[in-house]
Amino acid sequence: MDQAHLRSLLEQVRGGAVEIDEALDRLRHMPFEDLGFAKLDHHRALRHGMPEVIFGMGKSPEFILEIASRLLDRTPNLLATRIDPAAAERIKEKFDDAEYFPLSGVLRVWRDRTQHGKGTIAVVCAGTSDIPVAEEAQLTAEVMGNTVDVIHDIGVAGIHRLMANRERLSQARVAVVCAGMEGALPSVVGGLVGCPVIAVPTSVGYGASFNGLAALLGMLNSCASNVTVVNIDNGFGGGYVAGLINRL
Amino acid sequence: MDQAHLRSLLEQVRGGAVEIDEALDRLRHMPFEDLGFAKLDHHRALRHGMPEVIFGMGKSPEFILEIASRLLDRTPNLLATRIDPAAAERIKEKFDDAEYFPLSGVLRVWRDRTQHGKGTIAVVCAGTSDIPVAEEAQLTAEVMGNTVDVIHDIGVAGIHRLMANRERLSQARVAVVCAGMEGALPSVVGGLVGCPVIAVPTSVGYGASFNGLAALLGMLNSCASNVTVVNIDNGFGGGYVAGLINRL
Amino acid sequence: MDQAHLRSLLEQVRGGAVEIDEALDRLRHMPFEDLGFAKLDHHRALRHGMPEVIFGMGKSPEFILEIASRLLDRTPNLLATRIDPAAAERIKEKFDDAEYFPLSGVLRVWRDRTQHGKGTIAVVCAGTSDIPVAEEAQLTAEVMGNTVDVIHDIGVAGIHRLMANRERLSQARVAVVCAGMEGALPSVVGGLVGCPVIAVPTSVGYGASFNGLAALLGMLNSCASNVTVVNIDNGFGGGYVAGLINRL
Amino acid sequence: MDQAHLRSLLEQVRGGAVEIDEALDRLRHMPFEDLGFAKLDHHRALRHGMPEVIFGMGKSPEFILEIASRLLDRTPNLLATRIDPAAAERIKEKFDDAEYFPLSGVLRVWRDRTQHGKGTIAVVCAGTSDIPVAEEAQLTAEVMGNTVDVIHDIGVAGIHRLMANRERLSQARVAVVCAGMEGALPSVVGGLVGCPVIAVPTSVGYGASFNGLAALLGMLNSCASNVTVVNIDNGFGGGYVAGLINRL
Amino acid sequence: MDQAHLRSLLEQVRGGAVEIDEALDRLRHMPFEDLGFAKLDHHRALRHGMPEVIFGMGKSPEFILEIASRLLDRTPNLLATRIDPAAAERIKEKFDDAEYFPLSGVLRVWRDRTQHGKGTIAVVCAGTSDIPVAEEAQLTAEVMGNTVDVIHDIGVAGIHRLMANRERLSQARVAVVCAGMEGALPSVVGGLVGCPVIAVPTSVGYGASFNGLAALLGMLNSCASNVTVVNIDNGFGGGYVAGLINRL
Amino acid sequence: MDQAHLRSLLEQVRGGAVEIDEALDRLRHMPFEDLGFAKLDHHRALRHGMPEVIFGMGKSPEFILEIASRLLDRTPNLLATRIDPAAAERIKEKFDDAEYFPLSGVLRVWRDRTQHGKGTIAVVCAGTSDIPVAEEAQLTAEVMGNTVDVIHDIGVAGIHRLMANRERLSQARVAVVCAGMEGALPSVVGGLVGCPVIAVPTSVGYGASFNGLAALLGMLNSCASNVTVVNIDNGFGGGYVAGLINRL
Amino acid sequence: MDQAHLRSLLEQVRGGAVEIDEALDRLRHMPFEDLGFAKLDHHRALRHGMPEVIFGMGKSPEFILEIASRLLDRTPNLLATRIDPAAAERIKEKFDDAEYFPLSGVLRVWRDRTQHGKGTIAVVCAGTSDIPVAEEAQLTAEVMGNTVDVIHDIGVAGIHRLMANRERLSQARVAVVCAGMEGALPSVVGGLVGCPVIAVPTSVGYGASFNGLAALLGMLNSCASNVTVVNIDNGFGGGYVAGLINRL
Amino acid sequence: MDQAHLRSLLEQVRGGAVEIDEALDRLRHMPFEDLGFAKLDHHRALRHGMPEVIFGMGKSPEFILEIASRLLDRTPNLLATRIDPAAAERIKEKFDDAEYFPLSGVLRVWRDRTQHGKGTIAVVCAGTSDIPVAEEAQLTAEVMGNTVDVIHDIGVAGIHRLMANRERLSQARVAVVCAGMEGALPSVVGGLVGCPVIAVPTSVGYGASFNGLAALLGMLNSCASNVTVVNIDNGFGGGYVAGLINRL
Repeated sequence: MDQAHLRSLLEQVRGGAVEIDEALDRLRHMPFEDLGFAKLDHHRALRHGMPEVIFGMGKSPEFILEIASRLLDRTPNLLATRIDPAAAERIKEKFDDAEYFPLSGVLRVWRDRTQHGKGTIAVVCAGTSDIPVAEEAQLTAEVMGNTVDVIHDIGVAGIHRLMANRERLSQARVAVVCAGMEGALPSVVGGLVGCPVIAVPTSVGYGASFNGLAALLGMLNSCASNVTVVNIDNGFGGGYVAGLINRL
Repeated sequence: MDQAHLRSLLEQVRGGAVEIDEALDRLRHMPFEDLGFAKLDHHRALRHGMPEVIFGMGKSPEFILEIASRLLDRTPNLLATRIDPAAAERIKEKFDDAEYFPLSGVLRVWRDRTQHGKGTIAVVCAGTSDIPVAEEAQLTAEVMGNTVDVIHDIGVAGIHRLMANRERLSQARVAVVCAGMEGALPSVVGGLVGCPVIAVPTSVGYGASFNGLAALLGMLNSCASNVTVVNIDNGFGGGYVAGLINRL
Repeated sequence: MDQAHLRSLLEQVRGGAVEIDEALDRLRHMPFEDLGFAKLDHHRALRHGMPEVIFGMGKSPEFILEIASRLLDRTPNLLATRIDPAAAERIKEKFDDAEYFPLSGVLRVWRDRTQHGKGTIAVVCAGTSDIPVAEEAQLTAEVMGNTVDVIHDIGVAGIHRLMANRERLSQARVAVVCAGMEGALPSVVGGLVGCPVIAVPTSVGYGASFNGLAALLGMLNSCASNVTVVNIDNGFGGGYVAGLINRL
Repeated sequence: MDQAHLRSLLEQVRGGAVEIDEALDRLRHMPFEDLGFAKLDHHRALRHGMPEVIFGMGKSPEFILEIASRLLDRTPNLLATRIDPAAAERIKEKFDDAEYFPLSGVLRVWRDRTQHGKGTIAVVCAGTSDIPVAEEAQLTAEVMGNTVDVIHDIGVAGIHRLMANRERLSQARVAVVCAGMEGALPSVVGGLVGCPVIAVPTSVGYGASFNGLAALLGMLNSCASNVTVVNIDNGFGGGYVAGLINRL
Repeated sequence: MDQAHLRSLLEQVRGGAVEIDEALDRLRHMPFEDLGFAKLDHHRALRHGMPEVIFGMGKSPEFILEIASRLLDRTPNLLATRIDPAAAERIKEKFDDAEYFPLSGVLRVWRDRTQHGKGTIAVVCAGTSDIPVAEEAQLTAEVMGNTVDVIHDIGVAGIHRLMANRERLSQARVAVVCAGMEGALPSVVGGLVGCPVIAVPTSVGYGASFNGLAALLGMLNSCASNVTVVNIDNGFGGGYVAGLINRL
Repeated sequence: MDQAHLRSLLEQVRGGAVEIDEALDRLRHMPFEDLGFAKLDHHRALRHGMPEVIFGMGKSPEFILEIASRLLDRTPNLLATRIDPAAAERIKEKFDDAEYFPLSGVLRVWRDRTQHGKGTIAVVCAGTSDIPVAEEAQLTAEVMGNTVDVIHDIGVAGIHRLMANRERLSQARVAVVCAGMEGALPSVVGGLVGCPVIAVPTSVGYGASFNGLAALLGMLNSCASNVTVVNIDNGFGGGYVAGLINRL
Repeated sequence: MDQAHLRSLLEQVRGGAVEIDEALDRLRHMPFEDLGFAKLDHHRALRHGMPEVIFGMGKSPEFILEIASRLLDRTPNLLATRIDPAAAERIKEKFDDAEYFPLSGVLRVWRDRTQHGKGTIAVVCAGTSDIPVAEEAQLTAEVMGNTVDVIHDIGVAGIHRLMANRERLSQARVAVVCAGMEGALPSVVGGLVGCPVIAVPTSVGYGASFNGLAALLGMLNSCASNVTVVNIDNGFGGGYVAGLINRL
Repeated sequence: MDQAHLRSLLEQVRGGAVEIDEALDRLRHMPFEDLGFAKLDHHRALRHGMPEVIFGMGKSPEFILEIASRLLDRTPNLLATRIDPAAAERIKEKFDDAEYFPLSGVLRVWRDRTQHGKGTIAVVCAGTSDIPVAEEAQLTAEVMGNTVDVIHDIGVAGIHRLMANRERLSQARVAVVCAGMEGALPSVVGGLVGCPVIAVPTSVGYGASFNGLAALLGMLNSCASNVTVVNIDNGFGGGYVAGLINRL
């Protein structure tokens, strides 16, 4: 859908030939822009209420900068994940309000801080090694306009730590629970609270954790019925879905 | 928490020694009843807004009947999954308003039909072989008080079938998408809609589907960010979480 | 070591040519009896303090009966696992004090009920479907001369059920914890108690439990340091090691 | 088959002792040349219509250069894959018409640009991270004498991007579709077009993609019947088979 | 696309309002028919040149008969796979020109025997146990209008058997090669011929064949570049793609 | 190689046009007979010194009988594995010197009992459940003309049983060691003896044995250097290779 | 549980309002301290008789030093595992009685050397490559107050080495057995001794050891009933459980 | 067995109190020497006819040098595998007749070149990337006193290359066949020759070769009955067993 088509559509709207509803519908399903090697999807914001996210792994700093610039021309906020310090430096040179979080590798431009969520999102992790994944979830949910309550290091082998946070957990409208090793925390949290729980397995562990496979299988087999699962180390996915739910 | 404790607590409430809020809190976290071999959790209804569900696999008809009877003493609705026809027959003899769905093996008593959901839940499946799993999701969501829009047989290899249902999909507040084989449907649906998508991999497939592993891995690796995943063939889990989200 | 050797050794002992200690040592390391197709090990009782156990899976009723008869000639107690009802019937015809437990498939002759354990062994299971495995552990520990405290259906998604049994758990000298699905119960129990915990993964679960693999991996990756693991559904192994520890 | 044998055979042909057909047949099935450590197969060109390809991984620059030189003595075109920049430099010093493509690591000498293909080959990829694999497919197909239409970044989560390219796709005589993550693109493309689709899973993805296993399994279980699959990241294989089909 | 739309479109075509090309294009991308629980795709014939195929596994005889009847109303030929004898009997009662092949479980109605293929398709299998899968490939290719040359039992451990069939193999325009166990036959055939080879792994084998996984991995790693792979035991897929290629 | 070719070759031999050695060589590499659906290889006896073996799994009794009859026309001995009792009965009706071994499912015709082996082959198994696999190895080695020394039930957890058989083991020229569960016996035997050890993993075991995978991996990783491995439950393969080695 | 609560509790004890037993009980189940990002559990010593252990992998030297300092304020002994030399250097600068063991990466502060164990713990390893894991087990058991008897390099392929150490093994009250490759040593040791055996699979091995998976599966399938298993390379876990058992 | 015991035994032999045969037998089963951390087994030479081999992976140069020195005190030949150049340099400084082969990482001292093998060992590899593994096999077999015929680069996709070497292959008394990717070469060679074939899977391959797993599974499922398998990349094991067989 190039510029010509867009102008034509809008003229039709102004002239009354096309109803507002129809124009919105057309816009929702079709437009994107062609960079040659990557098709940006500026209207995703309309569909999901979120700008395009940049997954930085395996992309050159130049490429990331180019995409970021295009996106920031049209949207106030930007989220980029798996960004190494060199790429972060390049982006911060151009956009001085960009924040970089080295633990999780997230880079964020957060200009429009309107709250869209209706309640609080709890972001929980089992051990200190799971913090990078939890931070990715937290930063994602925040940039989508949510209040996040972060609770670290309440793994199931010290169940009294978890029980001490029962009150905070039960006030969340949706919870993101990150855990490696046996990945049992979402089951216990899921049993304590009544809200949806997004489980994020992390690759934290030794030997037979097989880079997060043990935690992933544990979470998929959770005996708590309010648990769903995203990919290993996918803090972004956990925070994103929590944000979608919280704005319902 | 036996009767004596419960009476004591309530007397304290009446006498003002315990505040209502505190009493509710105590009730929310502790009570269950001991059958000797299975601890029913009548207060789960308070916590999740749902009665205990009976998972029938590997349980004898007598045992299922006993649990069902106990539960129906206190709650109007009952959901039992993976029930074979013999067990269903036993329960229907005693409770003549019980419905049995042989395709999915679900047995349902649905006396209180109050609507709790705020929008429509779309339950979608890719092929006709996925219908049993989708039906389990549908029946679960309905008994929780939701309106469900069921769309069958819109797998990705016939993308025009899916596109023809785009309008119905975009009106859902949350979607449950069941697919076997390559498990690609949640990614495509996730890209079309803005709402949360619960992906349910099914064990439908041949050879290298490895009983649903291929679909499971596909869904966990979805390039659509609004997708979360439950266990293979876990239609109940999909419908349950969708129901939780829809009442927010 | 045939009869001739055994007589010779004992004569040497009587004559003083061999010390008692040396004779015991020789006996401990070498003797067994040859049935032609199976070598019974009557002295295992001396080494482990337990008679040979019969694993019934894949063995004909005749073969099981023959081994059982040989063993009961020399030892008061017998434990046979994975026995189907037909084989059990055959053995009970000959030994009317044999008990058969159809849930777990265990057959037990328990004539010498001396207590060898120094404390109580807790045998715990997460859900009612795990009871057969827990029963195998319980019966094994009992026939070795232990007091067993059985606690069923305290899975982690209802953490208050588990917390309500905290006192009983903390009085155990060693615990056997059986769980399927995500296998998280040993981690939580391990964090609550100070004693060794033997985790027994069960094959209970759907889909991505992969017949107990999920629970097995979960337990091997437990964040509680006092947890060790035995094979899937190996209730016997769990009870056996607990019995060994409890007589220390 | 050394030079002496070859001369002898040709003399027999000239003298009429061997028919042309027989001579071709002998040549087709037997000849190769012994370098001592690697047997080059110059007649593969006769059999498949393609020169030997050099797989560079794990081979020293000297070794690659030696094979390349031998091959270029007898064939105008050369394709070398998984070549690192150092080896590429060595070859370009000697053959200044060699082109090196750093993204895919392909080195190509393309002297004979005769078209052998009868239609267009579409080379499609799902995301920008799949471009290196797609480029390997494209360069392979081109050097075999095919016209290639390259379409990047049309993954299934933005199905409108794919639908916008429906026309181009339906004009291809054969398609090569590269995708990582859930690997769903070949199924959707396969449903849209009527031609054979070669699916190339890529190792692009996080966590439970398990280095391309998720995409591989997805493609093998495709519900589109016109899809076949090659090895993970095997862009060469995809382009090669597409080239074979296109010259039929 | 209901009847009304279809009539309207055709009237527009007749009236000249819509060009033939445009009408064909609309028809190619959109139409299907809704049975309620299964959406038949009558225009797939236009797109792929093949009627819908019925995959019988897990479908009731009644359901299969209903689909078959619908399809045969509009298309002369029908292919149904994984049909058990009971379902076959039901269909043959209604359609007496239906043939049933019990070895492979294929049912075929073959009324229009026009040849569409331009050459011969070789269908090869390694051992006699692979014949059912090869037969499924053969019957599929035939009903699509191809001449098939079937060669059985030429596994690689008796390489002279394979060499003896070299001539027949080299005359094929495309080959389908079915093999279980180590799955090596496609590599050897692929090296002998210049045409595309579709490899079909079968689940034939013992122990570490893991139901065809060993053969599947072997074929994906083939050192012959002209080999592509379909799912385990997917003879239909192999024959189908071979048929598509052969009509190019 | 049909009859005509064979006659022609033999006439050339008689006439002196072809030397004996050359004729033998031609025969060794090419001949087989075509039954239509299975190519028997009568000259395999020349190559390996063994008749064709019939693998019965998945073959009908009629088919097995037909192959057996063909083979017994030309060779005195026959080995058929994985034969069920019904098929065995059919063959014994026709060939009354056929022996059937129901434990291992082997059927054997053993007319020529010439000894070809130069020493003794030890066939060892770890537990009584491994006997069927060991029996297959034993019967295979015997019919190839070897003396076999069978030692059952000497698993590694009763190391004194194994040590008591050290003498017998050290007299073997080659050993076949069958074990399930952890598969450790070949390593211990391999350390005790100096001869080649063929390890046969069996599918005996529970839970995490994964149908012999644990034993297979254990044997492949043996710390004894004289151990090689065959497929799970492949007693035939173990006996066969031992027989080949013993006739050197 | 902050300082205020603790003081209040102790004052109640002093005043007689709370009994000693009750106070101990409260302390046992609840207290921990919040560092902001990591919750230290000072009372774990009360529960398990062991201070918190620091798992160093993935933690910065500064973070490790901070935790170590906090812990050493309250407990005489400290164990830190997977510590790299840089972090060890930082800690030794501050605590000059810290010992660092580079082979296993363990750092230990061992001020209170009271013996708590009642017998000897044998720590055994199969090969010299398993020594790092065995050393981690040894150092763990020692710091818990146990006498450890270390026996290296007695793998099963040299069974006479193991038999020569039979006496030492049979004097242990509990054994920790570390082995990689096929992981058979625990089975053999388990058969020789009557005490509990903790098996520790190591990641030592080539190819199909799959980083310790072969050893892990072997140990889980041990035919010796007194064997339990911990995670791959988890020497700490092995030593820890052995220490718990030895103080019973 | 310390020096005192050894002297005592030899004196008994000299004095006639112990027969030569008995003394040999005692020596064969018991002696080894304790270095503290590694128990060398000097009498392995008596048992297997080979000195201890040093596996260098993960061992420091100093440690390797110390073991090598000890071994060379008593045996003329030494084989060390997986030696990096630095360690090789250290050993060559002390033993100037040591040869180092950088491709395979083998270091060899070959002073006693007596031939022990009775025939030729063929060492074959499929592609040039398999040469390092084949070289390890070759060097091992040579130092054990065998004549080795090396044939490189005769993979199955160029079957004529293999057929051209049929004569050489059929003259081997035992063959070692190394192959990566699909691992099909041992099956084809096994069918051509009558001798035992030791298959060595290599980790050569891309993507779904999974570091040699595909080749390993292929070889275990070989349809040629004379094939046994060793671990992935275990050239040493292949050469060693071939050497054992060849001296029979």
